[in-house]
Amino acid sequence: MNVLIRALQAVVTAAVLQGASTTAAESPPLSAADSDPVRLGWMVGSPPPPEKLIRFADGSHLRFPQTRWSFAHIRHFVPTSGVWRGDGPVSVLPRAERSDIGAVTFTPIGRSDKMTWAQSLEANYTDAIVVLHKGRIVYERYFGVTGPHSNHIAMSVTKSFVGTLGAMLVAEGSLDERAPVTKYIPELAGTAYGDATVREVMDMTIGVKYSENYADPKAEIWSHSRAGGILPRPPGYDGPTSFYAFLETLQKEGEHGQAFAYKTVNTDVLGWLIRRVTGKTLGQLMSERFWQPLGVERDAYFIVDSEGTEFAGGGFSPTLRDMARFGEMMRLEGRFNGRQVVPKAVVDDIRRGADKAEFAKAGYTLLQGWSYRNMWWVTHNEHGAYSARGIHGQVIYIDPKAEMVIARFASHPLAANANLDPTSLPAYHALAQHLLR
Amino acid sequence: MNVLIRALQAVVTAAVLQGASTTAAESPPLSAADSDPVRLGWMVGSPPPPEKLIRFADGSHLRFPQTRWSFAHIRHFVPTSGVWRGDGPVSVLPRAERSDIGAVTFTPIGRSDKMTWAQSLEANYTDAIVVLHKGRIVYERYFGVTGPHSNHIAMSVTKSFVGTLGAMLVAEGSLDERAPVTKYIPELAGTAYGDATVREVMDMTIGVKYSENYADPKAEIWSHSRAGGILPRPPGYDGPTSFYAFLETLQKEGEHGQAFAYKTVNTDVLGWLIRRVTGKTLGQLMSERFWQPLGVERDAYFIVDSEGTEFAGGGFSPTLRDMARFGEMMRLEGRFNGRQVVPKAVVDDIRRGADKAEFAKAGYTLLQGWSYRNMWWVTHNEHGAYSARGIHGQVIYIDPKAEMVIARFASHPLAANANLDPTSLPAYHALAQHLLR
Repeated sequence: MNVLIRALQAVVTAAVLQGASTTAAESPPLSAADSDPVRLGWMVGSPPPPEKLIRFADGSHLRFPQTRWSFAHIRHFVPTSGVWRGDGPVSVLPRAERSDIGAVTFTPIGRSDKMTWAQSLEANYTDAIVVLHKGRIVYERYFGVTGPHSNHIAMSVTKSFVGTLGAMLVAEGSLDERAPVTKYIPELAGTAYGDATVREVMDMTIGVKYSENYADPKAEIWSHSRAGGILPRPPGYDGPTSFYAFLETLQKEGEHGQAFAYKTVNTDVLGWLIRRVTGKTLGQLMSERFWQPLGVERDAYFIVDSEGTEFAGGGFSPTLRDMARFGEMMRLEGRFNGRQVVPKAVVDDIRRGADKAEFAKAGYTLLQGWSYRNMWWVTHNEHGAYSARGIHGQVIYIDPKAEMVIARFASHPLAANANLDPTSLPAYHALAQHLLR
Repeated sequence: MNVLIRALQAVVTAAVLQGASTTAAESPPLSAADSDPVRLGWMVGSPPPPEKLIRFADGSHLRFPQTRWSFAHIRHFVPTSGVWRGDGPVSVLPRAERSDIGAVTFTPIGRSDKMTWAQSLEANYTDAIVVLHKGRIVYERYFGVTGPHSNHIAMSVTKSFVGTLGAMLVAEGSLDERAPVTKYIPELAGTAYGDATVREVMDMTIGVKYSENYADPKAEIWSHSRAGGILPRPPGYDGPTSFYAFLETLQKEGEHGQAFAYKTVNTDVLGWLIRRVTGKTLGQLMSERFWQPLGVERDAYFIVDSEGTEFAGGGFSPTLRDMARFGEMMRLEGRFNGRQVVPKAVVDDIRRGADKAEFAKAGYTLLQGWSYRNMWWVTHNEHGAYSARGIHGQVIYIDPKAEMVIARFASHPLAANANLDPTSLPAYHALAQHLLR
């Protein structure tokens, strides 16, 4: 498991491991039912009793099972900026709910017994899930403290939004994918990115020393999360106090352009490139390019650091249906709500994926044959499915052949998709096949 | 001026005074035009250059002229919680704009020369203003970084929302105004509130030691703002880290029920009473009781402390038009958008005001004959006008006789309504008379 999913994920696992009583690390975590945040009564009371309080200062906002509440309330803990939905009407997502979906069965990876779709939600600590088939909502469930109007942190699903933005700028000619990063961000000369290209950043084939060894208090992952204000800083902290300042500390390790290596910092670099090229914040761009044309239901928001810089690698909190709208737009080759939101060529580029051999070097045993392009995970399966993936089970899964889009929020206790994939990927595919019948 | 407007106001002035280069304290502050936040380029760049950065850590988010940007972006600096608008349609505010309003003239208090309505906006550092007449928008202007969809901190206007909520609970019988505060909050026994009644809190006739002497580093005002996380805490800070913990430190000074004394902490106590009685957060209640039935356009948000407790005394950020909807509902005796949002008896109670003699003891030379009821300022003028007032010029002004409601956001450099009233109160009244013609 040591090469598996990293980056932001690690931030959260680290917070779990850092906790005084690390239930998750020492014994089997509470089940989804037993960790239901309503049942556990987080943040109820005036004030909540100490054992029901979730606080930024002690890092409990990123500790399971508190995460089952906090992931739907990130703005309660950190500064944020809004992503405006605009003034236009909400785009309609027609409903055609089906009662047969919960009973769809599949065989989890590595197991011989069958599991139902409904059971998989429990296994994955699903907080909210919606399935679109041919553009209609065929299945929608909310658990715990979530509802249709709840924002929930998408974590690394954020990367696919930012990667799509980046690809659009490349397609428009305002960002040159072959140019060195330093053409746009001279501040990164002398760092790992000093001899990297924009494309290498966008596909995460960057050789950068960025340790996610949670046991090492000097690992870069700690600096990253503390710099961005996602985790509290210890007394006397004298490290960087912004994402940009942290990025300027990163050193090279290995070569660029040789192998896929999933590291959240790359998306923060891409976010920087995008802002530098457009003169706008990610929040402004996400509103203008996605949220307004999509006709979403609700504003989203970003975690911002002490300089107002959004956490591009994982700080986006949309609602479930709005995340599904974005996925549906991608499925429809960029066209949604009567508009070409993303150029078809950009969607095609993502769907084609990247070099499988480079991806294979990352050693994801559960994701064989996949690739990673413009910060999307491309399955290269027979349905041509591709996905945006967050570390606690947040997902957008697009199956073009089955005309299916799944959006999911989750708060799995363990920060690694390897814990989620066995009961997720076959479930998605089984549902796709079911819908194709 | 020494007895004048206090409380949250002081927090902000204090931040101004604390600044390294206290322009406002040492020389005339920049004019509204010269302090325009777009012109000054706050927070533009990736990252913004140091001289254009506004940060929580150095308190510059509460320092003029940065406030002209930050007041419309408070969530960028501190944790917040949302006030949901609900899923219903937006209530229509018909438009009937009039071109004659800007030229309405009045004589500012203490001056002999005339000023126009349009000039008063500049004098008051108005960020956004809307005037409703008979329920129609007759005038609407946005300046600087604001627009119809911008949330802006309402500061002490928040108090009138919370006071109205409290009065509704009293009317419904779930909060006994004659009961001691300790009936609901035993934690406040042994504090200034140990022998106070709910009504005394609601009308701010509380004798509490709460200094707003900005020059005194031990003044309670510092503890209040630091406790709530509105201002940064110095290294080694060991004071209270929540609003509730701060309230528990307050000691009595003088008697209750004798004189009006405007102190922000009273609204935080009322917020506590409301949460204790309802088992809900202010955000939930504001959504259920006001935002949803009013059919507002946008979610609002509250500043929250480390325990998720909203800053009842001044932490509410709505949009301008939604603040106007609330005012229009009050003007219509609680009825708006086809519903009785607030009982007529509650509105009547507020309009009747409280004891003028008790109010007079506070020594507001510009507000003679006024009173303060349920956290509303009641003018007792010939139009029966009453108002919600924030310290940098935020306002809801309701003139029943003229069928006029004004909502205003502002970011005046000096934290005292005594600086704003001379060019505001006569302007409102002149406009009311103009509309009556």
